Amino acid sequence: MRITGFQSEDVRFPTSDTLAGSDATNPDPDYSVAYVTLTTDSGDAGHGSTFTIGRGTELCVAVIDLLAAKLVGESFDDPVADLARLPRLVAADSQLRWLGPEKGVLHLATAAVVNALWDLAARLVGKPLWRFLADLQPAEIVAMVDWRYLTDVLDPARAVELLEKRRPGLEERAALLVANGHPAYTTEPGWLGYSDAKMTRLLGEAIDRGFGQVKLKVGHDLAEDRRRLALAREVVGPDIGIAVDANQAWDVPEAIEWVRSIAEFDLAWVEEPTSPDDVLGHAAIAEAISPVRVATGEMGQNRVLFKQFLTAGAMGVCQIDACRVGGVNENLAIILLAALTGVPVIPHAGGCGLSEAVQHLAMFDFVALGSEASFDGRLIEWADHLHEHFVEPAAIVDGCYVAPSAPGASTEMLAGSIRQYRHRP
Amino acid sequence: MRITGFQSEDVRFPTSDTLAGSDATNPDPDYSVAYVTLTTDSGDAGHGSTFTIGRGTELCVAVIDLLAAKLVGESFDDPVADLARLPRLVAADSQLRWLGPEKGVLHLATAAVVNALWDLAARLVGKPLWRFLADLQPAEIVAMVDWRYLTDVLDPARAVELLEKRRPGLEERAALLVANGHPAYTTEPGWLGYSDAKMTRLLGEAIDRGFGQVKLKVGHDLAEDRRRLALAREVVGPDIGIAVDANQAWDVPEAIEWVRSIAEFDLAWVEEPTSPDDVLGHAAIAEAISPVRVATGEMGQNRVLFKQFLTAGAMGVCQIDACRVGGVNENLAIILLAALTGVPVIPHAGGCGLSEAVQHLAMFDFVALGSEASFDGRLIEWADHLHEHFVEPAAIVDGCYVAPSAPGASTEMLAGSIRQYRHRP
Repeated sequence: MRITGFQSEDVRFPTSDTLAGSDATNPDPDYSVAYVTLTTDSGDAGHGSTFTIGRGTELCVAVIDLLAAKLVGESFDDPVADLARLPRLVAADSQLRWLGPEKGVLHLATAAVVNALWDLAARLVGKPLWRFLADLQPAEIVAMVDWRYLTDVLDPARAVELLEKRRPGLEERAALLVANGHPAYTTEPGWLGYSDAKMTRLLGEAIDRGFGQVKLKVGHDLAEDRRRLALAREVVGPDIGIAVDANQAWDVPEAIEWVRSIAEFDLAWVEEPTSPDDVLGHAAIAEAISPVRVATGEMGQNRVLFKQFLTAGAMGVCQIDACRVGGVNENLAIILLAALTGVPVIPHAGGCGLSEAVQHLAMFDFVALGSEASFDGRLIEWADHLHEHFVEPAAIVDGCYVAPSAPGASTEMLAGSIRQYRHRP
Repeated sequence: MRITGFQSEDVRFPTSDTLAGSDATNPDPDYSVAYVTLTTDSGDAGHGSTFTIGRGTELCVAVIDLLAAKLVGESFDDPVADLARLPRLVAADSQLRWLGPEKGVLHLATAAVVNALWDLAARLVGKPLWRFLADLQPAEIVAMVDWRYLTDVLDPARAVELLEKRRPGLEERAALLVANGHPAYTTEPGWLGYSDAKMTRLLGEAIDRGFGQVKLKVGHDLAEDRRRLALAREVVGPDIGIAVDANQAWDVPEAIEWVRSIAEFDLAWVEEPTSPDDVLGHAAIAEAISPVRVATGEMGQNRVLFKQFLTAGAMGVCQIDACRVGGVNENLAIILLAALTGVPVIPHAGGCGLSEAVQHLAMFDFVALGSEASFDGRLIEWADHLHEHFVEPAAIVDGCYVAPSAPGASTEMLAGSIRQYRHRP
C-alpha cells in the first residue's frame, strides 16, 4: 500500500468566551488544532493534529502541507520499518531546518504528520497505539529514535538494555492497565478566571469523580494565590494532592520566593515556574524549593532540551506533550531518557486532542518501562475540554483514564466537528 | 508621524548552484530573505529582513504580515520611546506565543519587523545605527530590553551600572572605529564544497586583503579535515588565525574526540560543534577542548538560551545573529550579558544582509562597551555574498569593515534586486 494524499484542516473553538484555559501567561486561548488526515490506496487513513491556541494555526497548517506532501507516493507496507523511516523523511529538509532546528511552528507541524503515521500504523495492525508500542521489540523501539545529539547521555545499545531490563512484568502491567485504567489528575477546578464558588464546586466534583490530585493555576497575584490555595486545601483535605502551575510567569528569583510563600499548602509540584527554555534556571529553582518538585515540559521544544533538563536535575516531573516535539518518535526518546534518569513522566494533556494522543504514551511508558506492577506516582493530566469532538474520546472512570481498546491513536476527529469549527479567515 | 503600511517580500537567490555556503549540515542553501518595508505618512521608510536558506521563506513572510500589521496606525514621533514600546507590541501576542515562545519562524519574522523599526528610527535621527545606539543614554538602552527571564543574572539597574562604567573612552573608540574600521575575519575560503586549488587561491586572496583570520568548514570527514587544515596552515603561515566550523555535525563525545584530532593546527575556535540548543553539551565540550574556544550563537534562539550559554562557560565566543533573535532589542540584551560575563561578541555574518545588519551591533558593542581603545580580539565575520543587492553594502578595506556613515541600519535592498529575485511559487 501507498500513501496517496492528505487533507489538512484549521479548526478553532471559541474557548476564550468562557475563560476555561485561562492562566498567567495565556489569558484568552481559543483552543484549536492544525489537523491532518493521511490517505492511502487501500482506503485506510491516519489522523494527527497539533494543538494551538488560536492565531497562528494557519501557519502550522501551511507547514503540515509542506511536510505531508513528502509522504505522498511513499509505500507503507511494513509499518514498523516505515515508522522508523518516514518521520526522518518528514523532518529531513536542510532548507527548512534553518527555521528551527526542531522547534516552533516547524516542529509542531512535524508532530501532527508523524502522529498521523502512527495512527495509520496502529489501525493497520489492529491495536490501540499503547499496545502496538508495548508489543514492539526493544531494538524496534530504539530504531524509531533519532539519536543525534543524545549519545553523551544515552545511546541505542544502552537503550535496548534499559528496555530489556524492564520487560519482565510487561504483561502483568498491561493487564493491570486494562483492568484499572491509568491514574489521572485534573486541572479542571483551577483556572485563574474561575470564581471561588466555581472552584469549590469543581474541587468537590473532582473528589467525587475519584481524582487523587488536582492542579491550580497560580502566578498572577501572591495574596490571591495564598487565599485560593488555603480554600482549596480546606475543601479537598490533606489527602488529595494539589499541584500548582505558574505557566512561566516568574523570573528565577521571583519563582523561588513565591514558591517558598505557598509551600505550606503541601504542593505536589510547581509547574512551569519560568521560561521553558531555561534549564539552568529550573535547576536553580529545583534546588532552592526542594523537596517541592519542579515540573515542566509541555512547551519543551525537543529531545535536546529534555536531555538537559533530565540530567541537570532541573525537572522532577517530566511533562511530555504529544504534539510539540516531533511526535511519537521523539517522545520515545524522551521517555527513554526519563526512565534512565528516574524522573516520572506525567504528560501534559487537556487542550484539544492532547488527552486522546498522550494517554497512549503514558500507558506505553507504564507497561514497557514500569519497574513494578503499580502506578505509584504515575499520573496523566485531565481537563474536560472538547473531547466530544473525537471519534474515540479519552474517558475517565474513577479518576483513571480508561485504556483505549480500539485500533489507532485516538486522534481522529468527528467530520461534523471539523465542518462546524473550520476556521474561515 | 505614523506608520501607515508595510510591504513584505520573499526574495531567493539560487546560491545552491555554486556550493558557496555549503557545510556539513547545510549542503544546498539558496540564500534568501523575508524582507519588509515599513512606510509612514511622512514618506520615510524602514527596512528589515530575516535570513533564510530557501524553502520556508514564505512562512517567515506570512508571519511578517501578521506582525507588521500590528504597527499600522501606530505613531512614531519619539523614536527612542517608540523603539522600547513597539517591539513589545509586535512580540506580545498571547496566542502566537504558544507557537514558540520566542523561537523559530515567529522569532525570525519578529527580527525583520523590529529591525525595520530601528532602520526607520536611525534614518529619522540622521545617524548610522551603530552611532544612534552609541549615543543613547544607558537608561535608554536598558529600556529597550525585555528583562523577563534574565534577572537572575542581570537586571536593569546593574546593566545601567555596566554601561556607565564603560562610558569613559566612548568617543575615542568611536573615532578609532571611523578611522580604522572594525576588524573582520573571512569565511570565504573554507566552504566544504571547494576544491584544494580554489581554497588555496582564496586563502591567498584573504591574506592579500588584510584579513588576520580565516574560517574553514569541518565535520564531514576527519581525514579530509586534517588534510585541508594542514594545507591551509601551510598556505597562511603561523600568524593568521584559523577557526573551524562544524555546523552542528557532532554529538558531544564525537566533538571532543574530533577537535582533539585537529587541535594541532592551532585553532582560533571551534564553531557549532553540536546542537545549538545544547548548553550543557557545549559546556562539556568547552571544558574538554580548552584552551581551544567554543563558538556558537548564530542559531541561538533567544536571550534565555544566551543567558545560559554565557553563564555556564559553554560559549567562549558569542556569535550573535542580527535577525534570528528578536532584532536589535534582544541583541542589546545579549550584548549586555556578554559584557557582564566577559565573553567576546564576534557576530555571525555572511548569508544575505547579515553583514549589513550585524556590523552596527558589533560597532556599538566596541564603542559603548569596549574597555579600552583597542580592537584586541574583536572581529566580525565576513563572506563575500550578495552584498551587491543592498543600497549601502557592507564594505571591507584592509581586512576591516568600514564604519557605515549613512543614516539607517544598512538594511535596504535595491528595488531591482527584489524585482529580479522575487520568489514566484
